[in-house]
Amino acid sequence: MIELTELETPALVVDLETMDHNLDRAAEYAKSHEIALRPHIKTHKSPLLARQQLDRGASGLTCATPYEAEAMSEVCDDLLVMYPPIGPRALRLAELARRVRLTVALDSEVAANEMSRAAVTAASRVRVLVEIDAGMHRVGVQSTADAVGLARRVASLPNLELAGIAFYPGHVRGPVAEHAAQLSALAKLVAEARDAFAHAALPMETVSAGSTPTLRRTHEIDGVTEMRPGTYIFNDRTTAEIGACALDDCALTVLATVVSTAVPGQAVIDAGAKALGREPMRGGTGDGFGCLASDPSVVVKSMSEEHGILELSRSSWRPRVGERVRVIPNHVCIVVHLADVVYGLRDDAVVTSWPVAARGRGQPVLAGPESLALLRTGLGR
Amino acid sequence: MIELTELETPALVVDLETMDHNLDRAAEYAKSHEIALRPHIKTHKSPLLARQQLDRGASGLTCATPYEAEAMSEVCDDLLVMYPPIGPRALRLAELARRVRLTVALDSEVAANEMSRAAVTAASRVRVLVEIDAGMHRVGVQSTADAVGLARRVASLPNLELAGIAFYPGHVRGPVAEHAAQLSALAKLVAEARDAFAHAALPMETVSAGSTPTLRRTHEIDGVTEMRPGTYIFNDRTTAEIGACALDDCALTVLATVVSTAVPGQAVIDAGAKALGREPMRGGTGDGFGCLASDPSVVVKSMSEEHGILELSRSSWRPRVGERVRVIPNHVCIVVHLADVVYGLRDDAVVTSWPVAARGRGQPVLAGPESLALLRTGLGR
Repeated sequence: MIELTELETPALVVDLETMDHNLDRAAEYAKSHEIALRPHIKTHKSPLLARQQLDRGASGLTCATPYEAEAMSEVCDDLLVMYPPIGPRALRLAELARRVRLTVALDSEVAANEMSRAAVTAASRVRVLVEIDAGMHRVGVQSTADAVGLARRVASLPNLELAGIAFYPGHVRGPVAEHAAQLSALAKLVAEARDAFAHAALPMETVSAGSTPTLRRTHEIDGVTEMRPGTYIFNDRTTAEIGACALDDCALTVLATVVSTAVPGQAVIDAGAKALGREPMRGGTGDGFGCLASDPSVVVKSMSEEHGILELSRSSWRPRVGERVRVIPNHVCIVVHLADVVYGLRDDAVVTSWPVAARGRGQPVLAGPESLALLRTGLGR
Repeated sequence: MIELTELETPALVVDLETMDHNLDRAAEYAKSHEIALRPHIKTHKSPLLARQQLDRGASGLTCATPYEAEAMSEVCDDLLVMYPPIGPRALRLAELARRVRLTVALDSEVAANEMSRAAVTAASRVRVLVEIDAGMHRVGVQSTADAVGLARRVASLPNLELAGIAFYPGHVRGPVAEHAAQLSALAKLVAEARDAFAHAALPMETVSAGSTPTLRRTHEIDGVTEMRPGTYIFNDRTTAEIGACALDDCALTVLATVVSTAVPGQAVIDAGAKALGREPMRGGTGDGFGCLASDPSVVVKSMSEEHGILELSRSSWRPRVGERVRVIPNHVCIVVHLADVVYGLRDDAVVTSWPVAARGRGQPVLAGPESLALLRTGLGR
């Protein structure tokens, strides 16, 4: 057993009761509205936590990278990779599809062709969702007509199975209470796509959508069959700021130590850009890169790689060197990606920990001739 | 052997000839000006690359974290940890000091006391530099009088050895050609501190300073005995923008694939915030989070976790899905910290690779009762 005070900082700590509550609440919502919950594991990157989601009724998992999908295949045999399968990605996914029911989202003929070729090579079958740009303007075909065109192409390619459509409502930000018009526009888009697919005699088993900001209003997007929130397992400052959770629902904080108070008017903690990430408050109004759980008026106003500068002007709190704080990060997915291990707490006691198993990309380290030469130099001293 | 085209993207690739040139040039500068070069390894986090620096005459290495220092102790027995040793950090460093000549920088009595206590416990000796705030206003004592006060305290504590002063000129940004006044102010600060220490009969063996932006003008800060640049091994877009290197001197790029061109006016690559970091151009004037090596007018204008959006409006280049690009990142230290492996190229052929060995923090993963319970659930499906 390790005491909280013994943890070397910066350390990621998760209040397990809060996490359990977040998981339960989303599972209940999905069940009561008969929408499949397919959590995006990019937030936690842990098969152990994915298992907690599956045990609560998740229909499968969503991943972004082949490495995430491979890691999750240990605990789940129904995976959606919500990312265009181009180049070596397609090959790796086609190989994985031999072992699990694999679905990919894509928005181009190039991606469809590559996925098909890879699946033929691997002798596997891959389900495909045509991704539509629903307003975020990041990826996705630009119209339902284009969606039908790409869907026809997918349906014609060997070893692919057209499964429906997907979109990511990443443009629906800001206060949750103000989302109604955007959700209704999304419902209209889904209806349009359903009509167009039906008219073209194309199947649409799945309409995949959903994010943490829209989580509890997903049912307002008529026709959605599954949702893919990620952040909800931990929540973060941005999620709280827009009203999609309370600040107390933020399960993950970055435990940090005050390492310097030498410069007047500020305190320096050991959580900088390499622990917190430099993520702004998207759709929210707060400044800084995170706030203290104990006093949200204290924010991390600026950072270096290993230094976070706390703004003290809005608080009467005056920290001492050596004091520990917990920072609620703006964007928790980035914070987890920056770490190797996460500690689980109950009543502020460290009761467990787990590795961030699916961070990284599973790229090989080579042992070429120069690699060995470098190594020899390194060992030869 | 692996072909460049086979690498799964995003991948970090280093042109070894450019890196060698960067290393040689800094080593020659340090030698010609008789300033010790103690590179900061936070940029590459690799004992193999540290060895390249030591082979070229580096006097020792600079680290930020205990884990970095432990990793570097494999190849170097003279380490400076340029970070306040508070809490468990002090214990870990004191332990390391049994095996290597260890110096730490600190700016508070609390840190001095903790370092001394830890060194007594570990039965080791630790050299100490008093860190002065030279204008960056991040950490560091606020005056030479305060430096003398803290130095006296350090000199009085068991198992510590007062070695001099350190500062980080992180406020010296912007065009290198405009640094003269700031460098001259730093020289004045050093002279003042030298006088004050001499007057108090305190030793000042070392005056440690230096950054990549100030690298080639370090000699203008009279009295500096060692410099600690980090970024110079790879350089980055910011370093080029301020004139501390040419864009062609950027040895590390992020190899990325165009995964979508569905949204008009932009192209999406698979290097987003989880590969590039969300680092602004500090002291430089460019926008975005990185630019293409082949066409610096194309910048990564916005990002999601796994998506980078290329701004095409200033270029006639129109990418195809599947095309590969190389991104020069704004801030290379963050990019390396986000990766697990780096590939080395000669003439665009992959000839080697190495792990980012000192990323992470070396924190233990526990096997407590709940950890096992979680694990059982995970395996039990």
